[in-house]
Amino acid sequence: MCVESSYGLCFIGFGNVGQGLARILVRKERELEERWGFTFRTVAVVTRTRGAAVSGSGLSLRELLERSERGEPIGNDRISPIDAALLPETGIVLDVTPTNLVTGEPGLSLTRAALGAGRSVVSSNKGPVSLALTELKELADSTGAHYRFEGSVLSGTPSLNLALESLAGCNVQKVEGIVNGTTNYILTRMEEGFEYADALREAQEKGYAEADPAGDVDGWDAAVKAQILAAVVLGTNLSLGAVKRTGISAISRTDVESALSRGKRIKLIAKAARTYEGACASVAPVEIPLSSHLASVGGAVNALTFTTDNLKEVTIIGPGAGREETGQALLSDMLAIASSDRNRCRRKEERKSEISL
Amino acid sequence: MCVESSYGLCFIGFGNVGQGLARILVRKERELEERWGFTFRTVAVVTRTRGAAVSGSGLSLRELLERSERGEPIGNDRISPIDAALLPETGIVLDVTPTNLVTGEPGLSLTRAALGAGRSVVSSNKGPVSLALTELKELADSTGAHYRFEGSVLSGTPSLNLALESLAGCNVQKVEGIVNGTTNYILTRMEEGFEYADALREAQEKGYAEADPAGDVDGWDAAVKAQILAAVVLGTNLSLGAVKRTGISAISRTDVESALSRGKRIKLIAKAARTYEGACASVAPVEIPLSSHLASVGGAVNALTFTTDNLKEVTIIGPGAGREETGQALLSDMLAIASSDRNRCRRKEERKSEISL
Repeated sequence: MCVESSYGLCFIGFGNVGQGLARILVRKERELEERWGFTFRTVAVVTRTRGAAVSGSGLSLRELLERSERGEPIGNDRISPIDAALLPETGIVLDVTPTNLVTGEPGLSLTRAALGAGRSVVSSNKGPVSLALTELKELADSTGAHYRFEGSVLSGTPSLNLALESLAGCNVQKVEGIVNGTTNYILTRMEEGFEYADALREAQEKGYAEADPAGDVDGWDAAVKAQILAAVVLGTNLSLGAVKRTGISAISRTDVESALSRGKRIKLIAKAARTYEGACASVAPVEIPLSSHLASVGGAVNALTFTTDNLKEVTIIGPGAGREETGQALLSDMLAIASSDRNRCRRKEERKSEISL
Repeated sequence: MCVESSYGLCFIGFGNVGQGLARILVRKERELEERWGFTFRTVAVVTRTRGAAVSGSGLSLRELLERSERGEPIGNDRISPIDAALLPETGIVLDVTPTNLVTGEPGLSLTRAALGAGRSVVSSNKGPVSLALTELKELADSTGAHYRFEGSVLSGTPSLNLALESLAGCNVQKVEGIVNGTTNYILTRMEEGFEYADALREAQEKGYAEADPAGDVDGWDAAVKAQILAAVVLGTNLSLGAVKRTGISAISRTDVESALSRGKRIKLIAKAARTYEGACASVAPVEIPLSSHLASVGGAVNALTFTTDNLKEVTIIGPGAGREETGQALLSDMLAIASSDRNRCRRKEERKSEISL
């Protein structure tokens, strides 16, 4: 789509990630225009339980953030997520709805409708990527929309875009690392003397782990990230069920201490690698030597090591979660879309000026 | 410049880096075309002591690599580096001449002439960047050429492009790390029990350090990289002389062991940071806690930690030198140029088709 002036943003969801992005946008509005040539207005914000607000001329994100902090509703407008995504003023849909790995909903239907109508989608939601990446990419190509989801792995720490853009020309043979902050936090606390159950309870009290912690401790979150890395970095489609998966719930403090006494640390390692038959992906607790770069990655920090033909090993370490950290992932995707659209717009304008000559 | 079909490459210099790139190009010719849409022919290879070869229709890089291995001359054609850069068939000039931090030559005159004539320049040569970056960027903008030099810092490990592209939207406040493999190798060997002089001699025997090691051990190489990082990542121009610089020649084995006994490692740290007045840059041996990501970076490996507003700390670790590793830096720059040119070409073609309607 050729966007002539500013991007109309449509937030579907306005929880931690949506608010994190909104904070950055409020703080950096002028910097984004001056340094990155990116201008925007907020066309709609739709939530599941706190109402919706719509304005073709632009909502105040600052005011919506204040309302959220006071626990007040976002607004009283009645509009469905899909209707908001399809508003004529919407240019980019921000899918910051919760991940559902079984149905992909509500993100999957939203993403299908938006891309099908030529609206670009920027997302931190792993569900639609896991269940329907090939279909959604083809849909985006057919309508000229963009579908980007850097925030689905390692929050804003460059991972997917690093492999595709900064490492252009390299063939990645394997990518492995620490992609789930909750389990890494629990394992780090166990090294400090906590039993598994106590470390898990603390992670839940701090808001790192859900009340039902299975998604983290049974390795589902890490497995879907391994699946996404296999698809984007290695270009091979595996189902989530094809990712071999072992969580950390069977790891005891004794295991952690025994590994440490042998100069090793237990880390939950997600891995995707090329094989003769195509690719394989797995998640499992692995003993890592203390000298490894991954061993120094403690707490909620994440890391990935890419093994490539031209560069051998490259490791990136950075935040794996957080409001603004994931907001940054969405922002970098929006700037990439704007940069690509600028080229298309310029072409269109040059054609116009040729015709009028 | 709009390149209709394949890129005419002109190698100025054909030492370790030039040959490393040539090996990748030979090995990946088909992959580069199929996956990245990049096709090329080698128009000229000009060396200082091993002659030159020119062919508008394309030289065989495989044959030139074999000649180099046998110690034979590249060819008998008589042409100067600048004349080769300005051949009508040249699209991209590969400046892989040695770095001279005082005069910038021969790279500086070559880069000026090439960019002035609209030829893009991809370089691993730190001299011209250090001495004339602002002038060369303006020159490139004025003629529509590209000037890229990812290989000047951390070889092919993404550093400059990481900050500008993958971290788009972030404001980098500080960047610091290990950017010189030779001094890091010497310090690592000193931890293993070597005296400074013995570790240096070994580095020289292995070809890591020059016969005159001052460029590495006195911190000049790290200082110019700090200067380049300040310019590209922070957008502030400092002269090389403004980089505060302390090398490692005064570090003894006792210093290294004493630091280790306190849970620390001595690393030569290059740093560029924003200040109230603009920016500052420095190189100095620093005691790093063993728990830091930089502490696990031993031998010839390099690393940089970016401190940003949106993401806090992001660290990248990878090779800092090597034939193919630096060749990969040049390749990623060439692919970025091709991607940018493709957009310009498409615009031109769309204009043509509009006109013929």
